[in-house]
Amino acid sequence: MKYLYILLLLTGTTLQSQQTAEQQIRAIYDAALTQGKAYDWLNHLSNQIGGRLSGSVQAEQAVTYTRKQLEDLGLDKVWLQPVMVPKWVRGTPEFAYMEGKPGMTTNLPVCALGGSVGTPLGGIKASLVEVQGIAELEALGRDGIEGKIVFFNRPMDPTLINTFEAYSGCVDQRYSGAAEAAKYGAVAVIVRSMNLRLDDFPHAGSMSYGETPVAQRIPAAAISTNGAELLSTSLKLNPDIKFYLKQSCRQLEDVLSYNVIGEIRGSLHPDEIMLVGGHLDSWDLGDGAHDDGAGCVQSMEVLRLLKTTGYRPKRTLRVVLFMNEENGLRGGHAYATEAANKGEKHVFALESDAGGFTPRGFSFDCSEEAFRQIMRWKPFFEPYLIHQFVRGGSGADIGPLKSEGIVLAGLRPDSQRYFDHHHAENDTFEHVSKRELELGAATMASLIYLVDHFGIDGPRPIKGK
Amino acid sequence: MKYLYILLLLTGTTLQSQQTAEQQIRAIYDAALTQGKAYDWLNHLSNQIGGRLSGSVQAEQAVTYTRKQLEDLGLDKVWLQPVMVPKWVRGTPEFAYMEGKPGMTTNLPVCALGGSVGTPLGGIKASLVEVQGIAELEALGRDGIEGKIVFFNRPMDPTLINTFEAYSGCVDQRYSGAAEAAKYGAVAVIVRSMNLRLDDFPHAGSMSYGETPVAQRIPAAAISTNGAELLSTSLKLNPDIKFYLKQSCRQLEDVLSYNVIGEIRGSLHPDEIMLVGGHLDSWDLGDGAHDDGAGCVQSMEVLRLLKTTGYRPKRTLRVVLFMNEENGLRGGHAYATEAANKGEKHVFALESDAGGFTPRGFSFDCSEEAFRQIMRWKPFFEPYLIHQFVRGGSGADIGPLKSEGIVLAGLRPDSQRYFDHHHAENDTFEHVSKRELELGAATMASLIYLVDHFGIDGPRPIKGK
Repeated sequence: MKYLYILLLLTGTTLQSQQTAEQQIRAIYDAALTQGKAYDWLNHLSNQIGGRLSGSVQAEQAVTYTRKQLEDLGLDKVWLQPVMVPKWVRGTPEFAYMEGKPGMTTNLPVCALGGSVGTPLGGIKASLVEVQGIAELEALGRDGIEGKIVFFNRPMDPTLINTFEAYSGCVDQRYSGAAEAAKYGAVAVIVRSMNLRLDDFPHAGSMSYGETPVAQRIPAAAISTNGAELLSTSLKLNPDIKFYLKQSCRQLEDVLSYNVIGEIRGSLHPDEIMLVGGHLDSWDLGDGAHDDGAGCVQSMEVLRLLKTTGYRPKRTLRVVLFMNEENGLRGGHAYATEAANKGEKHVFALESDAGGFTPRGFSFDCSEEAFRQIMRWKPFFEPYLIHQFVRGGSGADIGPLKSEGIVLAGLRPDSQRYFDHHHAENDTFEHVSKRELELGAATMASLIYLVDHFGIDGPRPIKGK
Repeated sequence: MKYLYILLLLTGTTLQSQQTAEQQIRAIYDAALTQGKAYDWLNHLSNQIGGRLSGSVQAEQAVTYTRKQLEDLGLDKVWLQPVMVPKWVRGTPEFAYMEGKPGMTTNLPVCALGGSVGTPLGGIKASLVEVQGIAELEALGRDGIEGKIVFFNRPMDPTLINTFEAYSGCVDQRYSGAAEAAKYGAVAVIVRSMNLRLDDFPHAGSMSYGETPVAQRIPAAAISTNGAELLSTSLKLNPDIKFYLKQSCRQLEDVLSYNVIGEIRGSLHPDEIMLVGGHLDSWDLGDGAHDDGAGCVQSMEVLRLLKTTGYRPKRTLRVVLFMNEENGLRGGHAYATEAANKGEKHVFALESDAGGFTPRGFSFDCSEEAFRQIMRWKPFFEPYLIHQFVRGGSGADIGPLKSEGIVLAGLRPDSQRYFDHHHAENDTFEHVSKRELELGAATMASLIYLVDHFGIDGPRPIKGK
């Protein structure tokens, strides 16, 4: 009888806890959709500040602006975490053409890849060799490559439903193409933009020379997908085509920048930290609205939504706007290093860095046990059409926090249009839907709330509610 | 032993059938994403033809174009089904302003609602009365309304995740507002556009005078959401504001038009018809890319995808591009009437009329038993992130086919941005993503394939595969 009573009492508590959670989540979505702030913040970041490349004046402005906005939210603490970041500058706009016969030229849209060296002042003109990937370089050998420009033209695989998988399958050309081609004496590399759509925007992104000595580093540029198609077709008709490239980008000394951090101190377990974040830096061609202005303002909105709905977290909730995800990940590393030095205990970290599109779910990098527990929360998200709960990568910035105890998570928005905009001139505010952005923020806030309410090892809601 | 053998045999067959289905669906998606035709067709419909209002020359061109395209697919039969359609014309662009004091005017973006009468040549100028819905009219009574323009300003509810529900909650103002306000002596109605976003586009859409005698019909126009906000705020500051409206739209005689139909004859059950369709007509302000050019080209693509992947349906598969969904539904009624007269047996009908956005699933209007059976196919769609299988409305055009035996279905794309474009000047081709459109077509083709492969009452795949 006593046991039955306890059982009833427990079941009652759990049911009530369950209903509380449903109501809190409904309140979060309502607040996001009726009086959200994320879109206004993004408007400022995108249209008043613009592209926020690490070390740029815009990145500095973004630090100042978001710090002020977090302070205005009345958080318990807002601060800047210093971090030295690389400063790469594009210089004057790049210029490229292909030349069929001397004097017969067609301009092609290109942009320098982040981290690339420039060309000599007069540019580089050379013959081309087209390859589908790094593996083909060895077969061509020095005989086939020396003195030439290597044109990496493997497209993203359109049959992959998750476009991030298609990106992963191609991005080695961009990241390591120059270092690999230089080994065979190439004078430059041109890489097909990481974009599934055929259009005229070249897409930036980081590259690395790896161990290549400074003297052997060759310029690397992206070409738009339409440009790549035209170049490839032209090469088939006339393999003697010359390619001309001029770019004046260069790497300067590292400069001081900051991660922007704010927190609500936990009421019960202040030493257990839940983190939510995105990265404040972006590439310079667009205004970085999707990558990753969206993730920053959504992360800020998570704290605002919990405050505005009257929820005081039991654990400390921290928003981190990381600096330098795009070309160095210095912010992510600095944050994790300081956390380790201070012996801080992070129990959960959620990153939004896949664009401000309709949220579909989350990926989790955690133990089997933690994942099983999180899966029990799926029914809470059903009314909001959030259905994807998968194991997988979380986010680059929170990656360095990885340890045994922590659950790392990444928001999974619809990915179909992300690479239309990624790192390109058309990653701009007008391509972000207010509702989609807000739904993402509410979805993130709901997950953070559930982590705090139930705890990853705490009481569990009833399955199948 | 004999039973065991039969059981194993059956299980073997089912497993094989299951694997065949998985492979066929993969082939459909691959074909859609690598060599799809839907986007090219939509480009022509949108950019070469444009808005296709019933009875317009563009609607006629769309009939000719799509018939030719279907013929080129090598279907077994392509034909036109005659249908008389209403012909409403907008006339010269509408013009409206609000006037604080005489001579102090602010122009506001409006458009006539489809089916509305025009204003007198010199326009209408009158005081305004703002209401949140039809229910408020009675309380205001003739005293509060006579001689005035009624301004219906109830916004769509942003907290509803499915934006079609928010639309349903508002559209009575647009459809019946004029008929209801006329009963109290209103001289015109202005209706807030059915749009969740604040912007400057007025959204058209059909309205009806119901039983209102011709002499008592009053003009009805939509105002953009920004315009509605400005007007409402201005009215609060100055209730004496006058509103001026001029529009020259009118209803002409019905004209002859067509449903465009093509079919692949069933190899085993030619008398059982599976239908897939959208509507070829659109409003006139944009180019009707999402509503419903997308649904038309996706439906055409369903037949092409099955052909190109080498699948010959057992049942007859028919594509129907319906005429006049927007302001009359004459095509849908004509089709169902002729089908009934001929005693045709439709077993399944699928409509795409919710935009060319990322597909999320389907809604089904059918028996419990049929729904249970369809739910068993859900796992086939998991790799493609298709997760919504719900009971609910299907599509306006296929609605008249409803009978006991048939399963009616509607494609459910992501709905967040649909009403940003719906019936407005910005429902244009550049707002359709090629991949999203193609994924929708593949999803529809896969469902049609499953219906044909397993049959709605045939053998069932193993649950949970």
